[in-house]
Amino acid sequence: DWRSRKKKEIFQYIILKWAFCLCIGLITGLVGFFNNIAVENIAGHKLRLTNNLMLKEKYFQAFVVYVGSNSALAIAAAILCAYIAPAAAGSGIPEVKAYLNGIDAYSILAPSTLFVKIFGSIFAVAGGFVVGKEGPMVHTGACIASLLGQGGSRKYRLTWKWLRYFKNDRDRRDLITCGAAAGVAAAFRAPVGGVLFALEEAASWWRSALLWRTFFTTAVVAVVLRSFMEFCRGGQCGLFGEGGLIMFKINTENSTYGTPDLIAIVLLGVIGGVFGSLYNYLVDKVLRTYSIINERGPGTKLILVVAVSILTTCVSFGLPWLSQCLPCPTDLDDQCPTVGRSGNYKNFQCPPGHYNDLASLFFNTNDDAIRNLFTSANDKHFQLSSLFVFFVSIYCLGIITYGIAVPSGLFIPVILAGASYGRIVGRLFGSVATLDVSLYALLGAASFLGGTMRMTVSLCVILLELTNNLLMLPLLMLVLLISKSVADIFNKGVYDQIVKMKGLPFMEAHAEPFMRQLVAGGVASGPLITFSGIEKVDNIVHALKMTNHNGFPVIDEPPFSDSSELCGLVLRSHLLVLLREKKFTKKKVSLRSEIWRGFKAHDFAKPGSGKGVKLEDLDFNEEELEMFVDLHPITNTSPYTVVESMSLAKAAILFHALGLRHLLVVPKTPGRPPIAGILTRHDFMPEHILGLYPHLNPHK
Amino acid sequence: DWRSRKKKEIFQYIILKWAFCLCIGLITGLVGFFNNIAVENIAGHKLRLTNNLMLKEKYFQAFVVYVGSNSALAIAAAILCAYIAPAAAGSGIPEVKAYLNGIDAYSILAPSTLFVKIFGSIFAVAGGFVVGKEGPMVHTGACIASLLGQGGSRKYRLTWKWLRYFKNDRDRRDLITCGAAAGVAAAFRAPVGGVLFALEEAASWWRSALLWRTFFTTAVVAVVLRSFMEFCRGGQCGLFGEGGLIMFKINTENSTYGTPDLIAIVLLGVIGGVFGSLYNYLVDKVLRTYSIINERGPGTKLILVVAVSILTTCVSFGLPWLSQCLPCPTDLDDQCPTVGRSGNYKNFQCPPGHYNDLASLFFNTNDDAIRNLFTSANDKHFQLSSLFVFFVSIYCLGIITYGIAVPSGLFIPVILAGASYGRIVGRLFGSVATLDVSLYALLGAASFLGGTMRMTVSLCVILLELTNNLLMLPLLMLVLLISKSVADIFNKGVYDQIVKMKGLPFMEAHAEPFMRQLVAGGVASGPLITFSGIEKVDNIVHALKMTNHNGFPVIDEPPFSDSSELCGLVLRSHLLVLLREKKFTKKKVSLRSEIWRGFKAHDFAKPGSGKGVKLEDLDFNEEELEMFVDLHPITNTSPYTVVESMSLAKAAILFHALGLRHLLVVPKTPGRPPIAGILTRHDFMPEHILGLYPHLNPHK
Repeated sequence: DWRSRKKKEIFQYIILKWAFCLCIGLITGLVGFFNNIAVENIAGHKLRLTNNLMLKEKYFQAFVVYVGSNSALAIAAAILCAYIAPAAAGSGIPEVKAYLNGIDAYSILAPSTLFVKIFGSIFAVAGGFVVGKEGPMVHTGACIASLLGQGGSRKYRLTWKWLRYFKNDRDRRDLITCGAAAGVAAAFRAPVGGVLFALEEAASWWRSALLWRTFFTTAVVAVVLRSFMEFCRGGQCGLFGEGGLIMFKINTENSTYGTPDLIAIVLLGVIGGVFGSLYNYLVDKVLRTYSIINERGPGTKLILVVAVSILTTCVSFGLPWLSQCLPCPTDLDDQCPTVGRSGNYKNFQCPPGHYNDLASLFFNTNDDAIRNLFTSANDKHFQLSSLFVFFVSIYCLGIITYGIAVPSGLFIPVILAGASYGRIVGRLFGSVATLDVSLYALLGAASFLGGTMRMTVSLCVILLELTNNLLMLPLLMLVLLISKSVADIFNKGVYDQIVKMKGLPFMEAHAEPFMRQLVAGGVASGPLITFSGIEKVDNIVHALKMTNHNGFPVIDEPPFSDSSELCGLVLRSHLLVLLREKKFTKKKVSLRSEIWRGFKAHDFAKPGSGKGVKLEDLDFNEEELEMFVDLHPITNTSPYTVVESMSLAKAAILFHALGLRHLLVVPKTPGRPPIAGILTRHDFMPEHILGLYPHLNPHK
Repeated sequence: DWRSRKKKEIFQYIILKWAFCLCIGLITGLVGFFNNIAVENIAGHKLRLTNNLMLKEKYFQAFVVYVGSNSALAIAAAILCAYIAPAAAGSGIPEVKAYLNGIDAYSILAPSTLFVKIFGSIFAVAGGFVVGKEGPMVHTGACIASLLGQGGSRKYRLTWKWLRYFKNDRDRRDLITCGAAAGVAAAFRAPVGGVLFALEEAASWWRSALLWRTFFTTAVVAVVLRSFMEFCRGGQCGLFGEGGLIMFKINTENSTYGTPDLIAIVLLGVIGGVFGSLYNYLVDKVLRTYSIINERGPGTKLILVVAVSILTTCVSFGLPWLSQCLPCPTDLDDQCPTVGRSGNYKNFQCPPGHYNDLASLFFNTNDDAIRNLFTSANDKHFQLSSLFVFFVSIYCLGIITYGIAVPSGLFIPVILAGASYGRIVGRLFGSVATLDVSLYALLGAASFLGGTMRMTVSLCVILLELTNNLLMLPLLMLVLLISKSVADIFNKGVYDQIVKMKGLPFMEAHAEPFMRQLVAGGVASGPLITFSGIEKVDNIVHALKMTNHNGFPVIDEPPFSDSSELCGLVLRSHLLVLLREKKFTKKKVSLRSEIWRGFKAHDFAKPGSGKGVKLEDLDFNEEELEMFVDLHPITNTSPYTVVESMSLAKAAILFHALGLRHLLVVPKTPGRPPIAGILTRHDFMPEHILGLYPHLNPHK
């Protein structure tokens, strides 16, 4: 922006851009893999220990061990989250989405958040909560990208100068989009799905070139994961078996379908839509309650986490006792009952030669439970009552778990609940349907995902990549379309709800209908502070102190121009840098070239979060305050402007399409001051506008 | 835009939008299926007849039949194309891309183009040209969408009033995007690929809501195709066997790969990049030559088509004679030699029990040839020399075929050539590689596609959906990334080249670097014609006659405003509608409300191509010409404006991001006329700017 670059610099820039994508892919792949190994090992040891005690019929001891380890893990996760980085709680996808919309919320992508997100997620998932590691992986990917883009963290003295090349919002946003895509790719082993997720859900602006770069990043992730899994196949990774990274095999033998199947699928779609929107509604309510509780301090957060943890543990240990023991099927490749940590046939309290089907779902990691639900071995494997009990408890646990102070993804609870009711529907239609129950479980998961998250193409591709079965495509599309349409009648997607609940000023791509009735001049922010082209230092310091505006219009006045005219816009951060150098003059004269000489374009580059010059750090004596400074060199002389009589809806579209932070409003008629106001993101928020014009109908 | 709509109307609008998508999906699916059946039957009968004569050793007769039928089909296609709709020649993808960029070129989406595209494509493909039906299918889908959106064609008296609801550019563009996606989905049976194609290659603007609607459209296409193929499995579709719609089965047994494979794949990527950019270069040269030939008239076009047809026929009939006869393998499910029309083991001139491998490639439909190349039956099936001969001839034939006056897709020639050199590389690395040669053929096709078309994600997904093998994903990504990167060094993608060669003013999303040195005021179009708010009829008619501008600024002058100020922008089409109604007044008075009463919003809706009011149709007497008309009701009072000192690069980004047609330039200083110029698409074209400022370095 500041000076046109030389050829060498452009080349360096391009190489760096791709190198960053490579790094993001490598690191996110590594972290994703580490995450999985850790969860599988911690949860595996816990389950094996408990299971062995159960086999010896030491039930109480088993319960103590189970509750104890779950609570310990939960407390570890909660301490990390409550004391080190509160921003790491929750899914992280809404925050990434908001960041990519241009909202630079506090410490969302800080290094501490990254650290807590990784370890908190491991502890929470291993601790048996009904949460996934997918949302946190997306946040992790975005954090990694952000840290790389900032060239490390100054706070922890981990900075690399040569990495600090991307200093503007757009480049950073691009990197973080790549990071989010890499996160999805690492969580689901779905590279194409990752790209589509970034496109459909995360990004607010999109360029074709970005498609190409996110694709490269996710390809790197896929290669990294594949080679590590190849390495682990030898058995060097402890309890990490085949299963670590979810990848479900669904048999493709029977994928023809008839009319009854289609009816069942339409029904699944409708159910998914209704349950999904209800889920969103309840999650929103619970979140609002929790946020009141959580505001009381870290201690309260901790108590809430422990309470939910104990409840979850009791449900998952207690409910299987209600289930009838089933005799092991005779023609079986697997062990029955299962001895190791995973497998479909948990013995639990049953006599030898029998298994407890509910324990196979509850008494397992979430990934294994999903794998069991998607299994096609035997459609009588689960009793209807067990599936029903499981569905109800997971649905409720999922709702009360999101919002506690641990990193918690929403994908896994939703898939679990969806797969269980899908399997129920499959069983009920069993006599007339030709599709396998495992495919019904998949379609059920799809319908519930569509009903809560309201993505379509990306979910479809992610599920296809998860199950490696392209023949399901038309059915998946159908079920997603129905469930999304049904759920859209009731409320918004869960991520949009969370963004709104957190009060982040998310800028929609479309203008609200009532904006058509207003003009840009009508909502522009109140008392306007402007600077002259050559301004007294005192005025600037005073203005910076009194307001927290980030941009100030600059006006040229006679004798420096023929008449009073708009020169441009100056940013707070640039003003601070200029003031720090103290290139002041006693009189109102222009010393443009001299100021230029003192600076490099680098000095004005956007610093990482919380790293800029602060007003408090600057100190001026009386004499300096009476001097003048030439603002021309740091003024953006061609800011985007709209006439005050422009329709607000059009101004909003302009603001969003170009990703602006400030939009200057100029007067329509001459003879008035050359600037009528300034529009920022907050001025476009419906709440703000409806506050100014309470008589407006917000829906019209 | 004109009046805010009522709730009922919004509901009607939404229902119609989705109904249109459904219709587009249904019709495109039907056409795609019809297309395939026709090609398979025509080409099948032709090949069966020739083949039977060959088996009886009547070689000369066979040649006469083969040449005769090919020439007849070629002439049929060329006559349709040359005399009825010249716009139907070629792939159609560049035209669709240009349309979606906002270029409304003549008759690109007319009903005659649709008709010729469908039948011309059938004849051309069945006539043995090295062309595909995929590009034409995309164009067909777009035409269908356009016709539906316009509510039929007025020229052919096929109009439905109730369908004529989408009257603005954006809705039409959305429909055509859906149509293009449906075309890809129908051509490749790749619904997700279709969506991604529309996103990556076709569309210039993209909204999340569109993703969702294109997805629905392609899902409908997939369902339609599937049910028809189910129906045809009974044998009711003549010679349409399994194979009509390309869907290649590649065995998934052996998809592990080692280092030698990776080296071979990198090599494939590089080769694909080099061959691809060379292909683009040669296609461009040949196209420029052909366009000179084709300009001489339909007769010359016809001769060119026949010449290319005879050349292609001779090559495909003559070259197999050079090949050695191979003995049939003994352990085989298929017949050998093949008796019917398709199959891998063409007897050609060979003695019984032998087959001619080159004839299996040449003497077949293109789809079957690709299927044969992707077959994994036996890696010695094709001799290296045969593959080499086939590659060279297809590469050259592909280049000289594109640009003749028949609908011709580029996908199939590129896949054919790519698959053959991929198979060659696979054979050469055969001793050290572990991947199957069929997978090498697939990767070769991918590399050449990446090298010519420069798409990544969409090609990858299309190929995955074609081969139904997700395990190839990382390798496909790798090869596409390499070939695209290599090819990008040399030139642009083939579709971009064709758009440029056709002289269409395509607006790129990014601004050229030299635009940073210019200001918006410096390039705005010359002698500016403005109207007063209440203007004399004579002046308007005169201005409309003298210029072909589509937008005129309107300026309010005293006594109707305090000072001379910009009122807005009025469009030529709206002016013509206003003039037709002849609501004139003798004096300069405002009769805003009266004019309103005479019109409905519908009257000003954008008509379909060539359907608006024409200036020649309007007739005014002397008295009327001296009267005044109030332009305020039809003036867009909040047009987007930029200050004349705004950087041209920023203005270009604004222009593209908002999809504008006119951008008003206002003066910076007061005291001058309130409008300094108007910027249109042509003003942003690099050729135009470099014409105005010849001293600028276009690369800096």
